[in-house]
Amino acid sequence: MTNRLLVVGSVALDDLTTHAGQRTEVLGGAATYIAIAASRFCAVDLVAVVGSDFPERHVLLLEQHKIDLSGLEHAAGRTFRWAGQYAEDFSSRTTLSTELGVFEHFDPKLPPTYRSSRFVLLGNIHPGLQLKVLDQLEPGAFVAADTMNLWIDITPQELGQLISRVDLLIINDEEAHQLTGERQVSVAAAQILRRGPKLLIIKRGEHGAYLFGKDTLFFAPALPLPEVVDPTGAGDTFAGGLMGVVAASGKSSAATIKKGMMYGAACASAAVEGFGADFLAAAPLALIEERYQQLRRLVSLD
Amino acid sequence: MTNRLLVVGSVALDDLTTHAGQRTEVLGGAATYIAIAASRFCAVDLVAVVGSDFPERHVLLLEQHKIDLSGLEHAAGRTFRWAGQYAEDFSSRTTLSTELGVFEHFDPKLPPTYRSSRFVLLGNIHPGLQLKVLDQLEPGAFVAADTMNLWIDITPQELGQLISRVDLLIINDEEAHQLTGERQVSVAAAQILRRGPKLLIIKRGEHGAYLFGKDTLFFAPALPLPEVVDPTGAGDTFAGGLMGVVAASGKSSAATIKKGMMYGAACASAAVEGFGADFLAAAPLALIEERYQQLRRLVSLD
Repeated sequence: MTNRLLVVGSVALDDLTTHAGQRTEVLGGAATYIAIAASRFCAVDLVAVVGSDFPERHVLLLEQHKIDLSGLEHAAGRTFRWAGQYAEDFSSRTTLSTELGVFEHFDPKLPPTYRSSRFVLLGNIHPGLQLKVLDQLEPGAFVAADTMNLWIDITPQELGQLISRVDLLIINDEEAHQLTGERQVSVAAAQILRRGPKLLIIKRGEHGAYLFGKDTLFFAPALPLPEVVDPTGAGDTFAGGLMGVVAASGKSSAATIKKGMMYGAACASAAVEGFGADFLAAAPLALIEERYQQLRRLVSLD
Repeated sequence: MTNRLLVVGSVALDDLTTHAGQRTEVLGGAATYIAIAASRFCAVDLVAVVGSDFPERHVLLLEQHKIDLSGLEHAAGRTFRWAGQYAEDFSSRTTLSTELGVFEHFDPKLPPTYRSSRFVLLGNIHPGLQLKVLDQLEPGAFVAADTMNLWIDITPQELGQLISRVDLLIINDEEAHQLTGERQVSVAAAQILRRGPKLLIIKRGEHGAYLFGKDTLFFAPALPLPEVVDPTGAGDTFAGGLMGVVAASGKSSAATIKKGMMYGAACASAAVEGFGADFLAAAPLALIEERYQQLRRLVSLD
């Protein structure tokens, strides 16, 4: 029963516009991307909330992927919605609208069987809610968490508490800079590690991701892709694939996390080739394995 | 006699301002950075021009590093000078002044013994001059070349000829975009490879560098450094270290070039910790070897 990952975060319906086209009511949200990526490697328990407008086909898709939905709350009201548009070269994105809907009053409650989870990934939500999840867990879980610039700005104290209590913090380089004021990624990393987490991943988008720890320094590269269709959720997909591999192995050693990062990068490379979180769900496992092998060869001197 | 590298390009005196301080009349120029980095691995033949103001101490430093100066022309007039200032986070730099001096009429002439060079690195100069060097070489040399945005803009035809005649083109991602109009690095690379070179390196600064070829795809990461003092010449240092390793091995196989890229990145990581091209000259070989091993471990799953 160790081979499960508990995922807590947002499930959303996204309207997306990129150079490749436009899609409406696409299955989105950080927890969705995480859960689908992780489900390629282990069983997943999902704690999130959706509204009465959440399409049944999305529920079916999640169920088909070994994702346990006993923690997916169906509340009266509308599902969290986000509409965004990307610059043609993906150098920036514009939020066209955000509608919190039932997510505004999300109060994650773990079903009793989830409390003994051994592997947990807290998607980007209010750090106060992430702390509430931690309080419901039995001791000894390996906990990873993501956050975002908004919480660094408006809830620095709760975020500080969260950071001191997680095992692995996963953020991007802008967030690392914002958290510390340091531009050099290794200096920012050293400062964040002093605040509590055993391990820190700093994501750099299409440039790959660093892993920092007391005696650990690792870099997972990114594959140079011929085309990107929709980068939404790429960072969540990376984190989900990573923690899926870690949970599946039952080990949280640095070696497992390194391997997980390469699989996470493989998942992300496949995910950005289509719209929405369900696109990765349709990718054959053989494709993800092939991308993993490509990433290994990419940095091999042989 | 194969273990030599012919380097052609600019030697300059730089005035540099970074957050770490200010230095004047620092030894600079692309060919200088290349030659000093390469000299850590092989003997170097340098073809360049300096003025009557070029300090004797700089000549001595080059001589001390197995750099043959029979192709270093001493012309009447002032040495090429560049003054630049970097933003505090190194995200941009401003050219404060450029004085071409004797470099304006540089017309590279190879001493007769250099014509049979087996390994050549053409630093960034007017592509017409780079072609003139190619015309003086006996057939069979392995030729690498760098260029810059200016030549892509104003001499696209001569640059096209050059690209069709070199074995290895070394540019950065902005230049790859400018050459092709393509934003995706792998698409730009495929297009450039169709123009002639067997191999293409696309540098991404602190994010590492890709190697592209018909059956080759490789990525050399960059070390996350605690402090950068002066990034001037980092790309040239990378190219110089790379071609120094290739020339020293006497082989231009993809495997040698991959290893060379890792040593080039090691040299660049050491070079940016101080001002000017002479800073790397003072770095112990043991430090460069240690950086190389760190880069290997950085992408190792073990």
